[in-house]
Amino acid sequence: MFDFQVKAVCGRARAGVIQTPRGAIRTPVFMPVGTLGSVKALSPEELAAIGVQILLGNTYHLYLRPGCEVIEVFGGLHDFMHWQRPILTDSGGFQVFSLAALSRLTEEGVTFQSHIDGSRHLLTPEKSVEIQRCLDADIIMCLDQCIAYPAEYETAVAAMDLTTRWALRCRQAWQRNDPGARALFGIVQGGMFKDLRRASAQDLAALDFPGYALGGLSVGEPPETMYEVADFTLDLLPAGKPRYIMGVGRPEDLVTLVALGADMFDCVMPTRNARNGQLFTHKGTVNISNARFRKDPRPLVADCGCYTCRNYSRAYLRHLYKSRELLSYRLNTIHNLHYYADLMARLRRAIEAGAFESFRRDFFDRRVENP
Amino acid sequence: MFDFQVKAVCGRARAGVIQTPRGAIRTPVFMPVGTLGSVKALSPEELAAIGVQILLGNTYHLYLRPGCEVIEVFGGLHDFMHWQRPILTDSGGFQVFSLAALSRLTEEGVTFQSHIDGSRHLLTPEKSVEIQRCLDADIIMCLDQCIAYPAEYETAVAAMDLTTRWALRCRQAWQRNDPGARALFGIVQGGMFKDLRRASAQDLAALDFPGYALGGLSVGEPPETMYEVADFTLDLLPAGKPRYIMGVGRPEDLVTLVALGADMFDCVMPTRNARNGQLFTHKGTVNISNARFRKDPRPLVADCGCYTCRNYSRAYLRHLYKSRELLSYRLNTIHNLHYYADLMARLRRAIEAGAFESFRRDFFDRRVENP
Repeated sequence: MFDFQVKAVCGRARAGVIQTPRGAIRTPVFMPVGTLGSVKALSPEELAAIGVQILLGNTYHLYLRPGCEVIEVFGGLHDFMHWQRPILTDSGGFQVFSLAALSRLTEEGVTFQSHIDGSRHLLTPEKSVEIQRCLDADIIMCLDQCIAYPAEYETAVAAMDLTTRWALRCRQAWQRNDPGARALFGIVQGGMFKDLRRASAQDLAALDFPGYALGGLSVGEPPETMYEVADFTLDLLPAGKPRYIMGVGRPEDLVTLVALGADMFDCVMPTRNARNGQLFTHKGTVNISNARFRKDPRPLVADCGCYTCRNYSRAYLRHLYKSRELLSYRLNTIHNLHYYADLMARLRRAIEAGAFESFRRDFFDRRVENP
Repeated sequence: MFDFQVKAVCGRARAGVIQTPRGAIRTPVFMPVGTLGSVKALSPEELAAIGVQILLGNTYHLYLRPGCEVIEVFGGLHDFMHWQRPILTDSGGFQVFSLAALSRLTEEGVTFQSHIDGSRHLLTPEKSVEIQRCLDADIIMCLDQCIAYPAEYETAVAAMDLTTRWALRCRQAWQRNDPGARALFGIVQGGMFKDLRRASAQDLAALDFPGYALGGLSVGEPPETMYEVADFTLDLLPAGKPRYIMGVGRPEDLVTLVALGADMFDCVMPTRNARNGQLFTHKGTVNISNARFRKDPRPLVADCGCYTCRNYSRAYLRHLYKSRELLSYRLNTIHNLHYYADLMARLRRAIEAGAFESFRRDFFDRRVENP
């Protein structure tokens, strides 16, 4: 059964454990994105070796390709993709608004055209829950309306109210059919307006979800604005439930938001940047195609325990990347996801040791202009 | 030190062992192609798990990118690419003639323009040996002139004679500088003309190379022509030396050519076809994008021991391939290289058991029109 326990607190930062039928997840946690049933370039065994505890799958993408009728042959996404640890799926709403053509919003749901073949579909709160149940995700998300930045106040009000009404419908659909093993998270919207975020948080808290997410962040606003909204909103969420900030973010964002009490994150940054040759280090991000790496026999990060740094040089990584070799994407992704997993593990240990603030200072002190 | 022993003979088929300073190679053997210091999509650990005994590296590609000055920092290709089993490198000649722009042939060597940046280079027999020594390959090849098919007799004569003169220069360069650990193979040319193949084989045999290759096959001629030339030429080569047929081929080619006494092969077919969704089975080649696999939960080949077949379904492989997921190229390549490695292991065992002919009959009997 789903459960969450806060095990240690340091300032506002929390370390906890989410229990799911597919195993425990220690928080704070970062969830790599496996859009189409694969974290791009990696095998499940590599993810496990990195210490990945939970993956995110994209409902919109999986619904269109391969489709529920394929995945249900396997009883869900886990057996289909050969990954037995927990999976969280999003609702599909964000991709419908950002990727699909001609999406049209009504009270009922969103009609949209597939970005692949132009076919027409209707996504409703009930349909989103149904697809996520077919995928057999361990944590599922309410369908919400995510708005652009900047947005008018009236737009933000309407989207927030619709999100709340849809949250209620998602909750009903979930309670009607779910055996209770799966957890449904509510999503707080409200744009960058504090009164709307407050109203959204209170409305959703009244519905008593197993967990809560902040949606509508990292949509183009400056980091300071995101931090301000998160700072304000995280405190309004029930302390005993996990708090998930969707689509965020950079390593410095994770450290800053954990300080404000966030528990869960997802972002394409470590995987997408890896495929663009951008590699994370404790000093900052380096571009592996840089000419200074041409004959450099050292590992990317001397004390990094990842498969890539244990076995390959900067010169080889640069060569693979410049040559567009497929192994480049894999080795880079392994390193970046290891960096993220390791950062989260260090954050947890710092919180448990009551030393979060010194960890955070040290994290920012080590960063340099040209790493 | 380099050595070759024939351990078993069945008809004309041979099973043997090549000793190199980096380990033994059981023959007949198939060598996957790692053009740029990476077998596309695979890690060295995956190659080892498949049972790959030796890789082929492409001198032309590695000379241009990353260049010898990078690889010599690592003392050769092995440490650069994290592969400690044997490596064979080609001479660069084939790519100069097929890939480079404006290649111009003289007695001295070939001048050509890089296909990457248009820079001008001169490849001579001595330079080819020098580059292959810098790569620290365990088996290196003489620079030869490979001609197109079909070719005029006079063209074939001239190319064969030049190949012999270059073989002598390669041998001198190799003997001058090599400690003796490395083996240099001569390459028999002569087009599809038996008298020229005979002359080439005799000329090279007189130079007493540690091994011999048939070049200039699989260049567009019908399989029957290739078999006929190989049938005739293999018998002219010293029985105590390994016989390598370059750039071949399909599984049925390997079975047929082993029957004629060939010991070594290389080809991009298993790796390139994998990336095009063409997967090998004992019944023949299947296209994984076929709609009949859409909901098929079975492994590609029921009794296949490869990582892909042990863990993934046809439906998932089809989904990954249709979605152009990077993992698709890896899983497909693992299966195809495993198929080739397994086929060679079965050929060896059949020869050792004195049952090669029944193995060969069974191999062709199992193949069907639409596998």
